[in-house]
Amino acid sequence: MSFAPQPTDAAAIATIRILAADVVAKSNSGHPGAPMGMAPAAHILFSRFMNANPKSSKWFNRDRFVLSVLDLTCERNPCVLQYTMLHLLGYKLSMDDLKAFRQLDSLTPGHPEAGHTDGIEVTTGPLGQGFANGVGLAIGQAHLGAVYNKDGFELINNYTYVFCGDGCLMEGVSAEAASLAGHLQLGNLIVVYDDNHISIDGDTACAFTEDVGGRFVSYGWQVLQVDNGDSDLAAISDAITAARLEKSKPTIIKLKTTIGFGSKEQGTHGVHGAPLKADDIAALKTKFGFSPNEKFHVPKETYDAYAEAAKRGATSEASWNALLASYGEKYPTEHAELSRRMAGKLPEGWEKSLPVYKASDSAQASRKLSEIVLTALSPVIPDLMGGSADLTGSNLTKVKGSTDFQPSSTNLGTYAGTYIRYGVREHAMGAIANGLAAYGGIVPFVATFLNFVSYAAGAVRLSALSKAQVIWVATHDSIGLGEDGPTHQPVETNAHFRAIPNLAFWRPADGNETSAAYAVALKSTQTPSILSLSRQNLPNLEASTIELASRGGYVVHEETGEDLTIVSCGSEVSIAVEAAKKLKEQGLKTRVVSLPCWLVFDQQDLEYRLSVLRSGAPILSLEALSTLGWEKYSHEQYGLPSWGASGPYLKVYEKFGITGSNIAVVGKKVVDFYKKKGGEVVSPLIKAFTL
Amino acid sequence: MSFAPQPTDAAAIATIRILAADVVAKSNSGHPGAPMGMAPAAHILFSRFMNANPKSSKWFNRDRFVLSVLDLTCERNPCVLQYTMLHLLGYKLSMDDLKAFRQLDSLTPGHPEAGHTDGIEVTTGPLGQGFANGVGLAIGQAHLGAVYNKDGFELINNYTYVFCGDGCLMEGVSAEAASLAGHLQLGNLIVVYDDNHISIDGDTACAFTEDVGGRFVSYGWQVLQVDNGDSDLAAISDAITAARLEKSKPTIIKLKTTIGFGSKEQGTHGVHGAPLKADDIAALKTKFGFSPNEKFHVPKETYDAYAEAAKRGATSEASWNALLASYGEKYPTEHAELSRRMAGKLPEGWEKSLPVYKASDSAQASRKLSEIVLTALSPVIPDLMGGSADLTGSNLTKVKGSTDFQPSSTNLGTYAGTYIRYGVREHAMGAIANGLAAYGGIVPFVATFLNFVSYAAGAVRLSALSKAQVIWVATHDSIGLGEDGPTHQPVETNAHFRAIPNLAFWRPADGNETSAAYAVALKSTQTPSILSLSRQNLPNLEASTIELASRGGYVVHEETGEDLTIVSCGSEVSIAVEAAKKLKEQGLKTRVVSLPCWLVFDQQDLEYRLSVLRSGAPILSLEALSTLGWEKYSHEQYGLPSWGASGPYLKVYEKFGITGSNIAVVGKKVVDFYKKKGGEVVSPLIKAFTL
Ligand SMILES: [Ca+2]
Ligand SMILES: [Ca+2]
Repeated sequence: MSFAPQPTDAAAIATIRILAADVVAKSNSGHPGAPMGMAPAAHILFSRFMNANPKSSKWFNRDRFVLSVLDLTCERNPCVLQYTMLHLLGYKLSMDDLKAFRQLDSLTPGHPEAGHTDGIEVTTGPLGQGFANGVGLAIGQAHLGAVYNKDGFELINNYTYVFCGDGCLMEGVSAEAASLAGHLQLGNLIVVYDDNHISIDGDTACAFTEDVGGRFVSYGWQVLQVDNGDSDLAAISDAITAARLEKSKPTIIKLKTTIGFGSKEQGTHGVHGAPLKADDIAALKTKFGFSPNEKFHVPKETYDAYAEAAKRGATSEASWNALLASYGEKYPTEHAELSRRMAGKLPEGWEKSLPVYKASDSAQASRKLSEIVLTALSPVIPDLMGGSADLTGSNLTKVKGSTDFQPSSTNLGTYAGTYIRYGVREHAMGAIANGLAAYGGIVPFVATFLNFVSYAAGAVRLSALSKAQVIWVATHDSIGLGEDGPTHQPVETNAHFRAIPNLAFWRPADGNETSAAYAVALKSTQTPSILSLSRQNLPNLEASTIELASRGGYVVHEETGEDLTIVSCGSEVSIAVEAAKKLKEQGLKTRVVSLPCWLVFDQQDLEYRLSVLRSGAPILSLEALSTLGWEKYSHEQYGLPSWGASGPYLKVYEKFGITGSNIAVVGKKVVDFYKKKGGEVVSPLIKAFTL
Repeated sequence: MSFAPQPTDAAAIATIRILAADVVAKSNSGHPGAPMGMAPAAHILFSRFMNANPKSSKWFNRDRFVLSVLDLTCERNPCVLQYTMLHLLGYKLSMDDLKAFRQLDSLTPGHPEAGHTDGIEVTTGPLGQGFANGVGLAIGQAHLGAVYNKDGFELINNYTYVFCGDGCLMEGVSAEAASLAGHLQLGNLIVVYDDNHISIDGDTACAFTEDVGGRFVSYGWQVLQVDNGDSDLAAISDAITAARLEKSKPTIIKLKTTIGFGSKEQGTHGVHGAPLKADDIAALKTKFGFSPNEKFHVPKETYDAYAEAAKRGATSEASWNALLASYGEKYPTEHAELSRRMAGKLPEGWEKSLPVYKASDSAQASRKLSEIVLTALSPVIPDLMGGSADLTGSNLTKVKGSTDFQPSSTNLGTYAGTYIRYGVREHAMGAIANGLAAYGGIVPFVATFLNFVSYAAGAVRLSALSKAQVIWVATHDSIGLGEDGPTHQPVETNAHFRAIPNLAFWRPADGNETSAAYAVALKSTQTPSILSLSRQNLPNLEASTIELASRGGYVVHEETGEDLTIVSCGSEVSIAVEAAKKLKEQGLKTRVVSLPCWLVFDQQDLEYRLSVLRSGAPILSLEALSTLGWEKYSHEQYGLPSWGASGPYLKVYEKFGITGSNIAVVGKKVVDFYKKKGGEVVSPLIKAFTL
């Protein structure tokens, strides 16, 4: 597309710059730098290229825009740029909302939050995340396009645009994502890099002197450069056009900009942390032909110009809807399936495919049970798209006969494939999965050892915050992995993930519990899940059912008038059952409770929870990790006192006393202690207040 | 150095290959691939170049060797290579130790552990960590060399060698570290990359097709290539020589090797996860001229060859000791200081410089209090070497007048400088700090927002596991950061870090507590610390002293016959004090306990702990994050029910009810509940057993 300048361009760009300065000044917090520097690029992108309908912000084939937190001066957050654009384009964001920037309960929080503000695709702020989310959004398009597009029906062909800055590009998560995006030849991904030579600590000369362009060429990207991103609108437009034309490589546009362009402090990092001073804002307004005293002013011609862009988007959506309708006539099956997926619904009756087990079925590792679930569900739920960070054979995530998601030139798969080879890139994998979930029509799962989910902690908490349905297949979940030793054995991991709001951390004990974990994870469209799975074999429990386990906790072995309850999860439940048997031989009645998912258990009504973890006898928790947090459900806690150890797994369990016989000894101690103490033993669930 | 082939080379390399296969076969676990592929490079490096004394493995100016877990076939762990070399060279690792590979409590665990096995510099296994540790080791040399070397006294001039594989180079942490190493022009860092085109998922064609060499050139590295790493010993030697000659760039040597070279399955990823089959090992032995039936055989000529290398190292150390002695005559002051630092001791009386506060001193943010400590201690403890991940102005970590650690060609500092500009690279920062701590003579501190320490979770747990004294200055530690909102407000973070063994997580409440946190962190040479610090101002407490806070927990406000105790930490302690005052007005006596560090508190004797958190009245915990884990110290818990919020911080505190008046209301509820319940209220510290 050749660039056609418009008489309204200058005013629109000035409006963005000035509005940003006013908004930030009012909030007395935040970062005016980047919005100013990136105003021309934002204007060109949104006025000329973005294919999106502000009045229908969830239209499936819209272009996606991600602000990967370049911040103001630097890279901490120019989300005021995004809010400003959304307002000008007519999304559900009023001038009053802009004025409430960074105020409590406003639609314009300090960083953009998906699901909170109309038009925000992904939650960004933590550096590098948005960049990697963009790779996920681009994979989503490439995949669904390959699956559903037909000759004459280019239904899914949107672009993904990412704005990022120096900070994002210093982060390892973006490096991982960029390497994979190059490998995958994602031609629909266009990154605009605000190359302003400044970050929070000052000139990038102090820490970031690499040749970014050369690096991206090495990843297999197209690298373009705009020398004057402050005012050369034609060059910006031409670069975006060239990026769109390159279909087999992602593109990064190095846009040379001046931080805080137009302000007195332009080009210095004085612009970034603090709002512009009042006299500087006034001077800025005068310079751009605005009244120095008027605040939050948007010229009518600017609103009109963006209304045109919005209209273009609305028209585009209307044509697309017509195309979809005629697709439905020619390809009714695909149409039905695509419609279902776009609506975020799973196929009717998929739960019937969940494997069910009897106690007599042979013991299996829960990572193997997970493979059985994936094998059963994949044909029924084509929405499942997953992969592993180079541990496919250990995580058991590749269903037999599935195809790799690969560019066809590799001869290793196609874009229609559902299995993603993430490479050893856990953090990017998590962030890419957030992008896939945000794209829609896809239920992403990702896999590594549980201990290395921690490498992706930054992405995991954003899954939970932004309500992204991402399923982690986290195998080798304890000292049960044996020989790999303490560097690979999680200790703190479960406490970490259980403390994250809206994250379902599952540690199933057997086959039915593994099916239950998948069942709930798949139904929870607003909640990510981590499935913590064993390397070693686990026997099937007598009492387990999918229904019971789906409540997050239930009684595995019941007794009346018990002396003790042992509450446990995962591979230790069967050890608790063994301990209970030994205690029975000594005349002590021991109930056993399995608590595979705290989040889900906490959502049950109090009556049910109190029937599971009742008053009357002490409760002892058992898990082969740190005990931290188990105090919530028990009076006494058994677990690892410190790090694990390298050795055959049964010997490691023995070393730490996590065996039926030792837990029976511990259980007896607990019973004696509480008998001696006297008084009523009250359930730990009974509290003075709830938060 | 031009390569001089030795008649013993072939047998030595064959011995490494065969011994690795025997060791792995016996353990019936682990990965024979990499040790085989990398045997020639290991032999050339250790027999020709490494300047180290196996009989004195802590000699300060030794060359450092890091096995950044290329694994066997792939990259999961070829530590058997390292164990084999250590044994052959005469470190404290016997053939029996090798035979106990991956057995419980052996000196040869599944991954190399520093402090556990003689000659292991850093704990590796988790991919990418060793690479970044290597950058830290190289910074340590560059810095101490710049500070202490004098004309004619090149005391500190060792090299750091890192072996890594595809897996390490896919990880973001290594990308971050490589970019920084290039910027810092670390000519003493030499990485040998096992470029064998295979990882655990198979051919690297499936996920890792970038131009690695081009990428490292973009970072500013020297990139060399050895086309036949399997047998071209001269080329290997020449590459290492060229790497040593390049003084202003780190070097990566792309060593093309064949996985499992010599075995029937060479070049396939069948070699990596599983031990070689018995017949394959026998064939391998025959091929290399060894008896097919003899196991764990080392030819005398091989032991002799490595004994020569060891002797070279011993001679080198002796010359160095002489050099150090004459340095001491000419530069007694520097000599004394260097000797002290090499011994890992802090200067006498440094504690006297710790700031002390009275309650009447003005309220300050604990990040500011941290800056005051650093300002006071930096002149006294030159060992302190730290920096921030591009948040210097927010973390307040740069002491006035300090010099940047930079190559002098940048004109931004010198290698003698102590302030490191890490860029936005949290994960590498943590791993580099582990390398700095491992180097010795340096007490590294690193800084970012508390929420983004999670990006470095993989490095943090290895600090704790490998007992690396690293201090994290983690500011903006709660909803108290205000406007940046939930993407930046930690919720799960404290539970996560408190669950890591041997990690001191400090959340000081005022000036004296901040001084105490630093005091204990600096004395704990085997324990990393995270100092969780506020953005907002905190008043000084009446009762706080460095001595009391150094016990990890103490009584801030005492009452006899109390109705309630509130236990809290950090910015919420003063809110608890306010609540106690309000409850007093209602006639309820409320004690207040500050618990700045759980790890340290748990180390106090039970009598002391029970005097702080005593029986008799309910204990309510208060912290503006997830309550998870506080059940350990309290009967009832107040905190965040879910995510934080974006807004001015006092309004955010108000929203979540974390104010003196609301906590008084909650406290009253707790008192009433326990009164109604009746019976004795027993301290949560009284337990049936301890782990
Ligand atoms: Ca920048
Ligand atoms: Ca490899």
